[in-house]
Amino acid sequence: MTDRLSSLRSIMKQQSIDAYILPLGDPHQSEYPASYWKGLQWISGFTGSAGTVVISQDHAGLWTDSRYFIQAEQELAHNPFVLHKMDGQRSPSFVDWCAEALGESAVVAVDGPMISLAQKSRYSSQLSRKGLTLKLTEDLIGAIWADRPPIPVDEVFVHAEKYHGEPTSSKLARIREEMQQQGATAHLITTLDDIAWLTNLRGRDVKCNPVFVAHCIVQTDKVLLFIQPGKVSTPIKEALLQDGIHILPYDSLVEHLGALTTADKLLIHEGTLNVQLKEAISSQATTLSGSLIPRHLKAIKNSTEIGHLESVHVKDAIALTHAFMWLEHTLTERTVTEYEYAAKIAECRGEREGYFGESFSAIVGYRGNGAIVHYRPELDSSAEISREGILLVDSGGQYQDGTTDITRTIALSAPSDAEKRAYTRVLQGHISLATAVFPEGTTGGQLDALARQHLWRDGLNYGHGTGHGVGFFLNVHEPPQGFAPGLAGRAASVIKEGMFTSNEPGHYVADAYGIRIENLILCEKAQQDGFLRFRTITYFPIDTTLVDFSLMTKADVAWLNEYHDMVKEKLTPHLNDNQKRWMEDKCKRV
Amino acid sequence: MTDRLSSLRSIMKQQSIDAYILPLGDPHQSEYPASYWKGLQWISGFTGSAGTVVISQDHAGLWTDSRYFIQAEQELAHNPFVLHKMDGQRSPSFVDWCAEALGESAVVAVDGPMISLAQKSRYSSQLSRKGLTLKLTEDLIGAIWADRPPIPVDEVFVHAEKYHGEPTSSKLARIREEMQQQGATAHLITTLDDIAWLTNLRGRDVKCNPVFVAHCIVQTDKVLLFIQPGKVSTPIKEALLQDGIHILPYDSLVEHLGALTTADKLLIHEGTLNVQLKEAISSQATTLSGSLIPRHLKAIKNSTEIGHLESVHVKDAIALTHAFMWLEHTLTERTVTEYEYAAKIAECRGEREGYFGESFSAIVGYRGNGAIVHYRPELDSSAEISREGILLVDSGGQYQDGTTDITRTIALSAPSDAEKRAYTRVLQGHISLATAVFPEGTTGGQLDALARQHLWRDGLNYGHGTGHGVGFFLNVHEPPQGFAPGLAGRAASVIKEGMFTSNEPGHYVADAYGIRIENLILCEKAQQDGFLRFRTITYFPIDTTLVDFSLMTKADVAWLNEYHDMVKEKLTPHLNDNQKRWMEDKCKRV
Repeated sequence: MTDRLSSLRSIMKQQSIDAYILPLGDPHQSEYPASYWKGLQWISGFTGSAGTVVISQDHAGLWTDSRYFIQAEQELAHNPFVLHKMDGQRSPSFVDWCAEALGESAVVAVDGPMISLAQKSRYSSQLSRKGLTLKLTEDLIGAIWADRPPIPVDEVFVHAEKYHGEPTSSKLARIREEMQQQGATAHLITTLDDIAWLTNLRGRDVKCNPVFVAHCIVQTDKVLLFIQPGKVSTPIKEALLQDGIHILPYDSLVEHLGALTTADKLLIHEGTLNVQLKEAISSQATTLSGSLIPRHLKAIKNSTEIGHLESVHVKDAIALTHAFMWLEHTLTERTVTEYEYAAKIAECRGEREGYFGESFSAIVGYRGNGAIVHYRPELDSSAEISREGILLVDSGGQYQDGTTDITRTIALSAPSDAEKRAYTRVLQGHISLATAVFPEGTTGGQLDALARQHLWRDGLNYGHGTGHGVGFFLNVHEPPQGFAPGLAGRAASVIKEGMFTSNEPGHYVADAYGIRIENLILCEKAQQDGFLRFRTITYFPIDTTLVDFSLMTKADVAWLNEYHDMVKEKLTPHLNDNQKRWMEDKCKRV
Repeated sequence: MTDRLSSLRSIMKQQSIDAYILPLGDPHQSEYPASYWKGLQWISGFTGSAGTVVISQDHAGLWTDSRYFIQAEQELAHNPFVLHKMDGQRSPSFVDWCAEALGESAVVAVDGPMISLAQKSRYSSQLSRKGLTLKLTEDLIGAIWADRPPIPVDEVFVHAEKYHGEPTSSKLARIREEMQQQGATAHLITTLDDIAWLTNLRGRDVKCNPVFVAHCIVQTDKVLLFIQPGKVSTPIKEALLQDGIHILPYDSLVEHLGALTTADKLLIHEGTLNVQLKEAISSQATTLSGSLIPRHLKAIKNSTEIGHLESVHVKDAIALTHAFMWLEHTLTERTVTEYEYAAKIAECRGEREGYFGESFSAIVGYRGNGAIVHYRPELDSSAEISREGILLVDSGGQYQDGTTDITRTIALSAPSDAEKRAYTRVLQGHISLATAVFPEGTTGGQLDALARQHLWRDGLNYGHGTGHGVGFFLNVHEPPQGFAPGLAGRAASVIKEGMFTSNEPGHYVADAYGIRIENLILCEKAQQDGFLRFRTITYFPIDTTLVDFSLMTKADVAWLNEYHDMVKEKLTPHLNDNQKRWMEDKCKRV
């Protein structure tokens, strides 16, 4: 790593760059990039899914948030990178650090394709206020990354209509209707999940996310899909043409944007469009800044999708029943490593029909590892689970008929009072959100507080949002909606009927244990006019041995019993006698 | 009113103005203006404290929010004004209305002194997007308002240090420290309550708010106070000079701002500075946009103020005990009008030491009138209260040693199940906020949801914020903090130790009844490090005959009993035997 840093620093010197910002991501603003774009991990060793590296001649730093503190400390322990903990408004961000550490007139560089317009303008204004300059480069790390993986070339495949329920022609019609309202003749879409959704195609380019690398422009009469031609088979190409979708080389988008004319009114989304593409747009064309239309349409699941969500979650719970029963049984004979158990869970899911793969790398966090919020057990370093302490298991599957994401925390021995108290506060938050009724127009930020109030009362909290949108056989983290504190992003998102979101409060004690209880919840109309509520669509027992019933209200206990009745009713028809007995025990009324 | 409208329309025609926007307020962005600036009420008849009038040649409209719908409907019933109901993001604002009703190239005018920079830029951008122009005028209504009241000339008076606890020299030092951090050599302050706070002076210029009309510039070595000289007595003038505060004529501020030089770095607050003053600032000077420093300092009450808050609220509760006992007794003999009762409450407060006046016009809302959120009973139209139905009483006092604001809702006969259910949900929301513990950095928007969750569960809600900051012998509505939904203003305010805020969830059924339960709560450190909580500082019984105990949790009931124990303990030493018996009965444990 020291070699990699020296090579980069030589290039920086040659190009008169005082600091180089390397964000985590790709030119599509993906949360999980294809390996080709994992330069941050290559240079720093950090494998988390949120963070930014800044390298100057005498400093190499990684900035990340509290979800990744413990993980980053471990991953950076034996390399030159320094961890900078981000802490809401209180600690300086990496851009402020540049301004302070480098002094006036310094030049800070970032790759244009790797940042959005919104990020660029934030960085620029922060830097220029202190007299520094932001310089846009292109793939600085590419020059020194010898064994870089290629951009993926796997073929895309069709996601059948019986699963998603809406042909591309209909999706395009709805997009074009909104384009017209916004006065646009074209809409530039660079987010991979939105392109997969609108074309009803899927791919294998990104681990866990069934998307493919492409850009797209929806015009009033046709659609341009910028994608490596080898990725699209002839039958799919022909089917796309039926919908007026034309294939163009992935790299030709820049040229296309440069050739736009005064007749073009291009709707762009500043939050996701990268700066290289923005700068490529011809000055002849009118650029309209607005929303990413497919993102908002896709967030509202249709009735076909909702129908599948129920059955896919029954299927997923059967797999988890096998996995949890296997663990309980195996632990009576020997220890199990976290890594082995993560693989076992994937194996159990793999036996289910329509399984495509994990929806994210399973988090099997035993004792202290459970406190590392996005922990991923590795083959050579993962802990041995025995019949003692607390185990957190957060996992999910991609199926043709839906995406799952579930967390359960179980006690492998008698829990302490403090553990029970924290678990109960987390459960009460989970229940408060699951049973919330709220007026139309309510935001994710308002609902987030309901999930935290019980933990807060004990002076406890958690350093992540309470929930994220979940795709349909798409990304397990799907914007725009979610539950989180703050004033922007998920906090500002209005929760609408048909949205499918996770409900996952937690609590973490470093080096001791992690607690999280996660179900997916569908927003639907409440009885009362103008009000909405949630329906829980995840069906798996919640460990009641960790509950301190003296803290629970009558309504809390009623919810828990009704939830377990539902779980039993949904799963029992698919279980054998032995499994039924196990389920009966886990779901017994309290 | 038709005559007034015609006169205004003639002037508009002469000046080629297609529409004239008349906001509620004054050049100081006060919520409650002095009579001189009550042009909106003069032309439209609307007496609410939030609203905007827009007049074109063929339309006269009042835009207001749900708190004032019922009141506005009544006040506009017999005049040419049309009520436009504002409804969050859903209904168009008055500026959008101009854009749509008047068409491109229309000219919309507004008085420069009456709007803030923030408002101007919002109006301009909304209008220019549709091709309309915003024109700034000066006091258009002044030309036709024959019997306009004068700008007040009452003398200011000193607020003694034994009450407020911090001399002006100390306040100025703290302001200057922050100015220095922001690189400012001068800070322009135009908000009346901030000027009263920093000079430790009070006035009688605005009903219910003990402020005086002035502008102020804090410089590094002296302070310029722009105020009509007759308002300041010689002894006060001399005392001010001791603190380096110089008196200048009120109107000379414009001239002073025009004479600023390149040496001046003037810190302004865009949210409150009016456009006329902004445009008066010399282009030679550097203008720094930032926060209103005294507003944020004043929001944190000091230990002297906090000590008085407890005793002033005991005093206020004694007055209310007299008033509520009087009502109960009088109603056994005859009916009482809402107007008479409002006067009686003020009379009872007037008997207390240090009383200065009402902190706002008391809301005595009997039955359906209680549903008019900011209802104010009038002599000739107020309802007769008898021993039936529900009565809402929201009132407060200004005392030298603090400002109070309390709402109680009482049943004068056996309440219906629906009334009890709604009252209980409001009470549960009140308790959830009163007992909240929350991490530092939590916003008013997050806490607001806690107060609504129980009502929401029944499909109920209320159309106002849950709480506002309260001044210390100052305005009863004191920014910046509060509890409200949304993403800006009070919702975005961070609740800090020492802030004093109202906790007043409610529920309203038009033409039937209004329910609101309001106490004031002081934010203080919680037991747990990094967490905050509230202490309730209002001491008066909450009507338990309206509570449906089957809905209450054990913790809710415990809070109610502990609250009543505290009320009894605080008030009993000041009551005679008869009053003690009454209080004992109202506070009995349930």
